[in-house]
Amino acid sequence: MAALSSLDELIGALRCLPGVGPKSAQRMAYHLLQHDQRGAQRLSLALDVALKTLRRCERCNSFTEAEVCERCLSSKRDPAQLCVVEMPADLNTMEQTHAYRGLYYVLMGRLSPLDGVGPRELAFDRLLARASDGLVREVILATNLTHEGEATAHYLSEMLHARGIKVSRIARGLPLGSELEYSDAASVAQALLERRDY
Amino acid sequence: MAALSSLDELIGALRCLPGVGPKSAQRMAYHLLQHDQRGAQRLSLALDVALKTLRRCERCNSFTEAEVCERCLSSKRDPAQLCVVEMPADLNTMEQTHAYRGLYYVLMGRLSPLDGVGPRELAFDRLLARASDGLVREVILATNLTHEGEATAHYLSEMLHARGIKVSRIARGLPLGSELEYSDAASVAQALLERRDY
Repeated sequence: MAALSSLDELIGALRCLPGVGPKSAQRMAYHLLQHDQRGAQRLSLALDVALKTLRRCERCNSFTEAEVCERCLSSKRDPAQLCVVEMPADLNTMEQTHAYRGLYYVLMGRLSPLDGVGPRELAFDRLLARASDGLVREVILATNLTHEGEATAHYLSEMLHARGIKVSRIARGLPLGSELEYSDAASVAQALLERRDY
Repeated sequence: MAALSSLDELIGALRCLPGVGPKSAQRMAYHLLQHDQRGAQRLSLALDVALKTLRRCERCNSFTEAEVCERCLSSKRDPAQLCVVEMPADLNTMEQTHAYRGLYYVLMGRLSPLDGVGPRELAFDRLLARASDGLVREVILATNLTHEGEATAHYLSEMLHARGIKVSRIARGLPLGSELEYSDAASVAQALLERRDY
């Protein structure tokens, strides 16, 4: 029906959100129109402003409104450590630990040959240039502990080692508070294999 | 960080979507900015246009761009039957059956005293006026078969009966293709209770 077009267009547009299928999109559209028109207006504007103002930080590759983000410019952070993460969300998680005061590089993805994502797509040469700035002493690979994250870490470690850069990987093992009985065998095996002297 | 404000605002704005928490909102924002800027632009515009053009149909109470929606104006539909549903999504489901050619009334909710939704909030008087147009012969209550949907149907049936309007309720029973062994006891009991002559 022609009369429903702007509703249909809204439902269709909501499907560009990850994990949102036709049913969810419909539910979201009705919710916004019926219960939260102010929220919808705010979202429309926020999308528009974000698209216009956000760019990639020239140093860490994450989103920022400036050429170089505040974190990279901060004098309180240790420029000798460079932590490589897959996504900005991972960077946020790292920050929440309050256990790291070095700098970051955000890959904006992970190697995924089946999806056509290789070293070129992730611009590994930019990371290499970043890690070769003369200040970085150690690159800490904090990609996810998934197959793709591990493969990405492996590839990066070879590439960085070849340039004589010191590389480390975040530890694999059992999470704090976990019980062996309820842990999967692969994690327990890994924790055993990578045991540390005590 | 001040430099992240338009990103933070976008993440915050995405949380107005139903079922979207902080983690999902963050993932959605990064996805749009990194992989689907055109989708984000489209969504921004679609929200804006929808807010400006959509209103409630004066007859069926659903969303439309005109005073009265095309479905309500259609001469191909039977004005003697009025099907009452909770939400526009329910109307769409009914239409997909191709088993109904009457008209609709969309409550835009269901009675929910705990949420402060009573007959006044759902504007039951508008439905009553709609059902009293002289053409409607039967009101078919197709609210959900949940506690709230059943309570809404019960309340509406009393109200409509009092005005001498014929009311029916969609059948409760076991869904097509279901097996007794795997059906819940309450549904089987209901199907037994509401058995029909054969």
